[in-house]
Amino acid sequence: RINSARLWDSLNEMALIGPGVAGGCNRQTLTDADGEGRHLFKRWCEAAGMTMGVDTMGNMFATRPGTDPDALPVYMGSHLDTQPTGGRYDGVLGVLGALEVVRTINDMGLKTKHPIVVTNWTNEEGARFAPAMLASGVFAGIHTQDYAYNRTDPEGKRFGEELARIGWVGDEVVGARKMKAMFELHIEQGPILEAEGKSIGVVTHGQGLWWLEITLTGKDAHTGSTPMAMRVNAGLGMARITERVHQIAMSHQPNAVGAVGQVFVHPNSRNVIPGKVVFTVDIRSPEQAKLDAMRAEVERAAHAVAAELGLGCSIEPVGHFDPVTFDPELVGIVRASAEKLGYSHMDIVSGAGHDACWINRVAPTTMVMCPCVDGLSHNEAEEISPEWAAAGTDVLLHAVLQVAEV
Amino acid sequence: RINSARLWDSLNEMALIGPGVAGGCNRQTLTDADGEGRHLFKRWCEAAGMTMGVDTMGNMFATRPGTDPDALPVYMGSHLDTQPTGGRYDGVLGVLGALEVVRTINDMGLKTKHPIVVTNWTNEEGARFAPAMLASGVFAGIHTQDYAYNRTDPEGKRFGEELARIGWVGDEVVGARKMKAMFELHIEQGPILEAEGKSIGVVTHGQGLWWLEITLTGKDAHTGSTPMAMRVNAGLGMARITERVHQIAMSHQPNAVGAVGQVFVHPNSRNVIPGKVVFTVDIRSPEQAKLDAMRAEVERAAHAVAAELGLGCSIEPVGHFDPVTFDPELVGIVRASAEKLGYSHMDIVSGAGHDACWINRVAPTTMVMCPCVDGLSHNEAEEISPEWAAAGTDVLLHAVLQVAEV
Ligand SMILES: NC(=O)NCCC(=O)O
Ligand SMILES: NC(=O)NCCC(=O)O
Repeated sequence: RINSARLWDSLNEMALIGPGVAGGCNRQTLTDADGEGRHLFKRWCEAAGMTMGVDTMGNMFATRPGTDPDALPVYMGSHLDTQPTGGRYDGVLGVLGALEVVRTINDMGLKTKHPIVVTNWTNEEGARFAPAMLASGVFAGIHTQDYAYNRTDPEGKRFGEELARIGWVGDEVVGARKMKAMFELHIEQGPILEAEGKSIGVVTHGQGLWWLEITLTGKDAHTGSTPMAMRVNAGLGMARITERVHQIAMSHQPNAVGAVGQVFVHPNSRNVIPGKVVFTVDIRSPEQAKLDAMRAEVERAAHAVAAELGLGCSIEPVGHFDPVTFDPELVGIVRASAEKLGYSHMDIVSGAGHDACWINRVAPTTMVMCPCVDGLSHNEAEEISPEWAAAGTDVLLHAVLQVAEV
Repeated sequence: RINSARLWDSLNEMALIGPGVAGGCNRQTLTDADGEGRHLFKRWCEAAGMTMGVDTMGNMFATRPGTDPDALPVYMGSHLDTQPTGGRYDGVLGVLGALEVVRTINDMGLKTKHPIVVTNWTNEEGARFAPAMLASGVFAGIHTQDYAYNRTDPEGKRFGEELARIGWVGDEVVGARKMKAMFELHIEQGPILEAEGKSIGVVTHGQGLWWLEITLTGKDAHTGSTPMAMRVNAGLGMARITERVHQIAMSHQPNAVGAVGQVFVHPNSRNVIPGKVVFTVDIRSPEQAKLDAMRAEVERAAHAVAAELGLGCSIEPVGHFDPVTFDPELVGIVRASAEKLGYSHMDIVSGAGHDACWINRVAPTTMVMCPCVDGLSHNEAEEISPEWAAAGTDVLLHAVLQVAEV
């Protein structure tokens, strides 16, 4: 079993970097705080006897050598970046839990045939630069590095420039590494495990997603002196489409969600009818057919609302992944590890996207989930118990040791 | 008649200060650009032989002396501040038209019994600091100066500090001046005069307004892993209330308008269900009963939507004025001036709020309106013709000369 107190201390220490305003974190990708978090993580890895490699997307790979120089490494990890008002565990548990696994193996003086690699993937959240899981996506060949480098944040800053600015452009070619397997430990970010009273989620699938960035163009005009009949109100269009997204998701229950999380109103002045609104629709389902149907319905609804109000409407997909089936053999190993350790467990579908979803395209992957209080995530009040964190990390330890061959 | 070319040149020169991105202006109140615009206006006034006084709200008063030292001055003016994506004429025509009136009187070597004062009122737009017409409101005793000084912009900067920063806190006690009358020349900002083919709007009334800042509080949560039934989505609440504001305005046709111009979504991340949205409803009517009814309906609708979605809801009025009846005698003088000059004219109700609406509480006031292309305002593409500008300024000249007694 891992050292629960040591894991908890490391989680608390990392949370001091890029602190939030309400107990959580704001350590958005490629900010100074992200850079600081990376340095701390690197120091910890080196103290645990690992060697750090960094690729040209800033992905970090800390290696503990195996006994067979030709054996493919076993990877485990997640991400250290957070939402602007994010929690202390989303992603971080997966990285520092993996580090704790290595520290435990070191304490026990174990040798494995396969090297073990602890990973921090860049920009998993996609909050600052869409899409989410950007760097694991480049690693898996989903996006080109060029595409990634040219993604911009709301201030117009480019990903590539910001990565260079914080000094984390590595020299490894992204995607060059071959993996025997990758495991990702993560908090559930939903309410199911806690409600069912289970310590461990054995993640069999991940739901698919579309992010659709909709730009509505109307005409800036005075809110007082412009008659109702003359208005071309992009804000009203955004409101109607937001409602329709909700209705579309509700009409596909169960196994479907939809919301608008981000809205930019222009010029955003109290007495100006909005001439332009740019907003992002997030729709998801674990069923491919539902996901496709929802996308088509949202696009139809958006164009219909725009036509009704005389608005210009363009729709750009800024994020997408299909539903994922994780590697059945690895899933079985996670289930057996939980069983062996005596932790209650259940099979579960991931509601969020994760780096393991993209890496699944180039290597066998799966995940281990632990509960979080009230299913709350992407919220500074995100909370887990030290026991939940330890149980998930114990399962990770046993699963990894089995695949890495002690 | 005034010198149309000189007026047009001055309008163009002022438009170079705080230029917009699409041919208009961004000279928001108490910015560096506002300060620069004030200096130019002061230089022009002094070159025209006037003496500049500034009060503690930054209101500017340029005086051309009268022959009777005891006679109350006749005021004319408007505002030099603009929307963030504003036009070149909204407000500016009223200030520089008034300056042109004095230049013309100088050219003609006329003397008036009453002094004539050209005014620039601070923060008419209310775009940066709500409410609109803030400084004329303090002058008229509607707001305390303390209230005004403590208004904050979206970055949290205070009005009082920003006024001091740009160096325009004057030494006159605000509201100390007594007026015989005040005239405000302004573009219509609506489509009526152009549609009716009239050069001059004789403004008999102004419609009333409420700005209601609504804060909805839900719960930040993950857009993917949070089941629909568990969401407390403040963004959806904002969308529903925006639609209801539109419906309420439509149900009170004619003589009612309503829209949401400003929206702040928190944390505004694509994969976070909005936990908080702050947005401002703008509703107006020239009829007091309608205005009151609309406000009550919007508040009821907001609370009902919030209850339906489990959201917290607070509503703060951040701007208000009742419908205004301008001084009938001054209105008659404007109508007679247009008639005498041979300009086509019609009576009109102002759809926007203006400084003359507040000053009306402490002195007789009225307005002169001229058309604008397509009724478009609060848009960088706002446009008028030099002829329209000249006609309005001619009417202003004759009305002022009559009241100031040549
Ligand atoms: N785990 C997580 O929150 N990932 C961000 C990508 C997503 O929105 O699913
Ligand atoms: N004239 C003008 O646009 N004033 C701003 C106040 C308002 O919104 O009516």
